[in-house]
Order: sequence, then C-alpha cells, then structure tokens
Amino acid sequence: MPKKVDHRERRTRIADALVRVAAEQGLEAVSLRHVAAEAGVSAGMVQHYFRTKDEMMAFAMAVVRERGQARVAAAVAGLGEDPPPRLLLRTLIGALLPLDEGTRDDGRVALAFLAHLAVRPAAAPGLREETAQLTEFIAGLLPSRDAAAAAGLLALMEGLGVYLLGGQYTGEQALGALDAHLDLLFDRAA
Amino acid sequence: MPKKVDHRERRTRIADALVRVAAEQGLEAVSLRHVAAEAGVSAGMVQHYFRTKDEMMAFAMAVVRERGQARVAAAVAGLGEDPPPRLLLRTLIGALLPLDEGTRDDGRVALAFLAHLAVRPAAAPGLREETAQLTEFIAGLLPSRDAAAAAGLLALMEGLGVYLLGGQYTGEQALGALDAHLDLLFDRAA
Repeated sequence: MPKKVDHRERRTRIADALVRVAAEQGLEAVSLRHVAAEAGVSAGMVQHYFRTKDEMMAFAMAVVRERGQARVAAAVAGLGEDPPPRLLLRTLIGALLPLDEGTRDDGRVALAFLAHLAVRPAAAPGLREETAQLTEFIAGLLPSRDAAAAAGLLALMEGLGVYLLGGQYTGEQALGALDAHLDLLFDRAA
Repeated sequence: MPKKVDHRERRTRIADALVRVAAEQGLEAVSLRHVAAEAGVSAGMVQHYFRTKDEMMAFAMAVVRERGQARVAAAVAGLGEDPPPRLLLRTLIGALLPLDEGTRDDGRVALAFLAHLAVRPAAAPGLREETAQLTEFIAGLLPSRDAAAAAGLLALMEGLGVYLLGGQYTGEQALGALDAHLDLLFDRAA
C-alpha cells in the first residue's frame, strides 16, 4: 500500500523554509531553489505550492497571516471569558507585533509583502475589505465606537511593527507607545 | 574651455529616474542599466553615484528623505510665524504622507527601503538616533510632553503611509485617523 502523503505536514515544512529564507535574504531575493534546499525537498514539490514570484509572495503572506491568527487565538484564549475590551485589544495587538525572533521572521515577510503591494496593489484584491472589517471590529471595542480612531489604532500597530523590525524602537518603547495610545482611547470615556 | 559639469543637476536627474523606476518595478528589482536608460545617461555615470545595490538603496532613500524635508519646509513656511503646535504637527505629517502620485512614488521607495532594513538593519546605522531626535521634537510639541505618545504618533504616521500605499485606506480615511488621534493628544490638556 502506498504511503499516504501528509499534505498538511509538507505544506507547513515548505512554508517554514520559505519564511526562514525570506526573513534572512529578503522576500524579493528568494528563489524556488533556495526554498527547496532549505526545506530538504525537490524543486518540483515546492513548485506544486507556487509557480511564480507573485504566487510565492501570496503563499508566504497567507502562511504568515495564518500564524498570526493562531497566535492571537492562543493569546486571547488565555484571557478567559469576556475579557475587558482594553485588555482584549492589548493582547491582540501584542500577539501580532514582531517582539521576538519567531514573530520578527514573520514580520519581515509581511513587510516585504506590503512593499510589494505598494508597487502592485492588485496582488491582494480582498485586502481593503479585510482591513475595513478589522477596523469595524476594533471600533466596536472602543468606548467612542469611532471608526477613525480604530483606523488610527490599526495604523499605529503597523507602524510599531515597521519600527521594531528596523530597530528604530525597542520592544519596550513599542509597548510603551501602544499603552500610551490605549490610555488616550480608553480614558476619554471615563 | 571645457563645459563645467552641473553635478547637482545630474544628481537630481539620476535620482528622479531611480525613484521613478523603483516606484514602478519595486526597488529590489531595479538595475543600474534601468536607471541609466530612464535618465538618458550612460551606465558609467550612474555608477558614479552608486556601485552596489546597498549603495543604490541608500542613495534612493537619501533622495526621498531630502524631498520629504523640502516638502515639510515649504508647508511649514506657509503657516507663518509661531504656528500652534497642533497645526504644525498636522502640516508636517500631512506633507510626509503619500497622498498624491508624486509623494506615492517617494513613499514606495521609502517602504522598499524599510523592508530591506528589516532584513539588513546595518543598512542605516544612524536611523535609531535620528528617530529618537524626531520623537523628542514631536514630544516637545505635545501638551503632555510624553515621549511614548510622541513615539505612537510617529508610528501612526508610518502605518498610515503603508496603508495609503497598499490601498487599504483612502486619503480621506488616513487624514480622518490622523485628526482623530490629534484630537485625543490635544484635548487631554484641556
């Protein structure tokens, strides 16, 4: 009987290799051969998951996003039922910021994808709607329910990520800026 | 008598060509030949300004930064003497956000540089100190004088730029988020 292929395991292995190589060399510089060598599989197998550079970028971004969602889910689960909105937001954003080496690798890939997107906006057709949904979710947690304030908080998170990755801010500075901002957003309702 | 070379004009011409090509194709994909063809000069002349990809990126970033500073200076000059701090910050940040096609080209180059920097932090050795100086300047304009709040405002500006370039936010949304944030920072002192 032929051995059943574990597609999930294989996909994870290739995805991990892709993110590692991309974090080290820059996503734009990664080739299919690099990823295959890093994953210890054939180039043909890697090609099964992406054939072009655009597909590779989309695959890398999907992997990074899935990991981010898993980190958020785990962190939020640790809060128990019905956490206060401020704590929920702090936990959610903290789980997404590139504060340790693993999340920094993911962050580098996400930033490379954003730079690619700025040149080829068509590379992520659903992104505007996704961002709008996320903004709406965040607004629902704010005392002001203000969509503009929610959009600002999301932008602040993105900017903190960029400055953490570039070394402009330390982890302490980034979390300090986040807390100062949450103070403003939540004190206003008092 | 040999014609005197106008280095400034030549540098500007090559810089403009570099930013145009980088904004169109992505900074990582740009070659010396591309830039020379776009500028209508020889490859050797381009090579006078940068020899390696890292030098090219640093040159592009320096050009984009100079243009940003010139835009800020022009916008702030229009405010007259001793503008109120909130208006000064709004004007300064507004001049740096990628809100039209020219500033979007510059923004694409800056974002590509930031993505490069996340992989090669050594590419911009003085950046941390520069960011610290900018944060201190911003803190001095805030009613709270709070460094963490200033770091947050700077991160928010960076994130708004990323989302403007990726199309997640419209110009109206980005300016709305900025104003909502300035409301919070300046109302607190009242």
